[in-house]
Amino acid sequence: MKALIIGGCGFIGSHVLDKLHSEGVSVRVLDRRAEMFRPPLPNVEYVMGDLSDTAQIYEALSGVDAVIHLASTTVPSTSNLDPVGDINGNLIATVRLLEVMRSAGVRKMVYLSSGGTVYGVPQTDPMREDHPLNPISSYGIVKGAIENYLFMEHKLNGLQYVALRASNPYGPRQGHTGIQGLIGTHLWRLARKEQIEVWGDGSIVRDFIHVQDMADLCYRALVSDVTGVFNAGSGEGASVAEVVKKICDVVGGDVKPIYKDKRNFDVPRVVLDVTRAKEAFGWQKTIDLEQGIKDTWAWVQEQVK
Amino acid sequence: MKALIIGGCGFIGSHVLDKLHSEGVSVRVLDRRAEMFRPPLPNVEYVMGDLSDTAQIYEALSGVDAVIHLASTTVPSTSNLDPVGDINGNLIATVRLLEVMRSAGVRKMVYLSSGGTVYGVPQTDPMREDHPLNPISSYGIVKGAIENYLFMEHKLNGLQYVALRASNPYGPRQGHTGIQGLIGTHLWRLARKEQIEVWGDGSIVRDFIHVQDMADLCYRALVSDVTGVFNAGSGEGASVAEVVKKICDVVGGDVKPIYKDKRNFDVPRVVLDVTRAKEAFGWQKTIDLEQGIKDTWAWVQEQVK
Repeated sequence: MKALIIGGCGFIGSHVLDKLHSEGVSVRVLDRRAEMFRPPLPNVEYVMGDLSDTAQIYEALSGVDAVIHLASTTVPSTSNLDPVGDINGNLIATVRLLEVMRSAGVRKMVYLSSGGTVYGVPQTDPMREDHPLNPISSYGIVKGAIENYLFMEHKLNGLQYVALRASNPYGPRQGHTGIQGLIGTHLWRLARKEQIEVWGDGSIVRDFIHVQDMADLCYRALVSDVTGVFNAGSGEGASVAEVVKKICDVVGGDVKPIYKDKRNFDVPRVVLDVTRAKEAFGWQKTIDLEQGIKDTWAWVQEQVK
Repeated sequence: MKALIIGGCGFIGSHVLDKLHSEGVSVRVLDRRAEMFRPPLPNVEYVMGDLSDTAQIYEALSGVDAVIHLASTTVPSTSNLDPVGDINGNLIATVRLLEVMRSAGVRKMVYLSSGGTVYGVPQTDPMREDHPLNPISSYGIVKGAIENYLFMEHKLNGLQYVALRASNPYGPRQGHTGIQGLIGTHLWRLARKEQIEVWGDGSIVRDFIHVQDMADLCYRALVSDVTGVFNAGSGEGASVAEVVKKICDVVGGDVKPIYKDKRNFDVPRVVLDVTRAKEAFGWQKTIDLEQGIKDTWAWVQEQVK
């Protein structure tokens, strides 16, 4: 099998790449830039380009059996600043990708959706995939609309797809720009002897999943015949305060966060029910939060050296 | 109160205009072209322009308390031919409209969504508003995404809105291009002594609502304080074969349809549960299908003369 990973040089993409390699899947990567923390890998075809360049996508699909689409031009915290840019860069680009895949005869896709934003304010805890979709960010609206186009392409034109509604992935190689990824952002700041910042009072609960568990799920979704939408998280909640506590334990010393105003698009608690993914793919998480923070801290310290 | 009707020269828009007039609401209309079947009305300000022209929208909103947004650049039967055009012309245009409304301080919108396409294949009969949304046309996906942006604008920026998920409106002033509106299309063809065409075997069931009942609901939604999503139909199903039978009775003579292949985006049965709209707005339909077909036939015959 040969897979095209769109966004394969990103945080999650680089781990999916490693996983596919280790399983013997041939990989081509399409991304706008090279990996931030590693040199290019041998045995990987890199195509540097943009998802909106239809001709290049067509070329990148040559000889490919499946696409893993992880690219996004936006993150939840900034998508509301420019919803039209979000729609253009993600929704329209993905609808065009589906059209090109159809004409190229590539009939399998694993798509990275968002469990943290498509549901909006939780009405159940944890949330199953059939929870109503009431997103309050453009990011979540666009992810949901893309899921709908995938479903339509499945029904009308036979695409097999798995949309993974990811919770909060974390782990080595997560960026440090501070706009996405609480654990990575905190650890990077601490490694640089900077104070960490928390939006709100620390009571917000999220479902953190180690990126290697996420990559394992992407691989299993790729090689399965299942079509549909699946939550992709740990199935367990941890508050921001609890995460800060665990970080303190790992990093050592007295970590004092600066508390800032809560953001109007942050929902209080998001924990995903991942029963469906476990059953469909024989998957389960293998790395708990303590171990994951240790791994990530070790990696961050390497980088700062 | 002064309302801007976007798409106010269209089929539904022209009836909403009449209703608002009769209720003493001042009206400005924004549309790309004039009404097809009537001269411009006195006491209405017409602005001829496009929803994608942000500067013009801003001007059109001056002095306005509320917007009734009925415009669409696509219809269900053609949206899948150009989903990117659908997203550009409707989703992006409406997201921009919401931004302009926010800066102009206009905090009320009635939006015409689509009960026939947002749900996809019915899992219940009739369908309530909490039925899962699994559209299989771009038209339905875009309508659902617009509903989500309305909800987000409500939650984050205080917009009051009513999204009306219309079933199949019919009645006088419906166009005759044959791409939308089964009853109007049939009656126009019969008035011109042409044969009528049916996609599939006539077993498809739809929920037909007279456009004047629809306009009444738009008005009630406009003047209410309620926010949310509401089905807007008759609550009753009629098969295409039944409609053809009723048309025969009204028109007289032997009507023989040409049966054509069914279309892959047509779902077998769509009937809306309209309990919520009845309760929220004290509304109910007043024109049954026989009477409505008679009205429409009388009007079509007038036009053909």
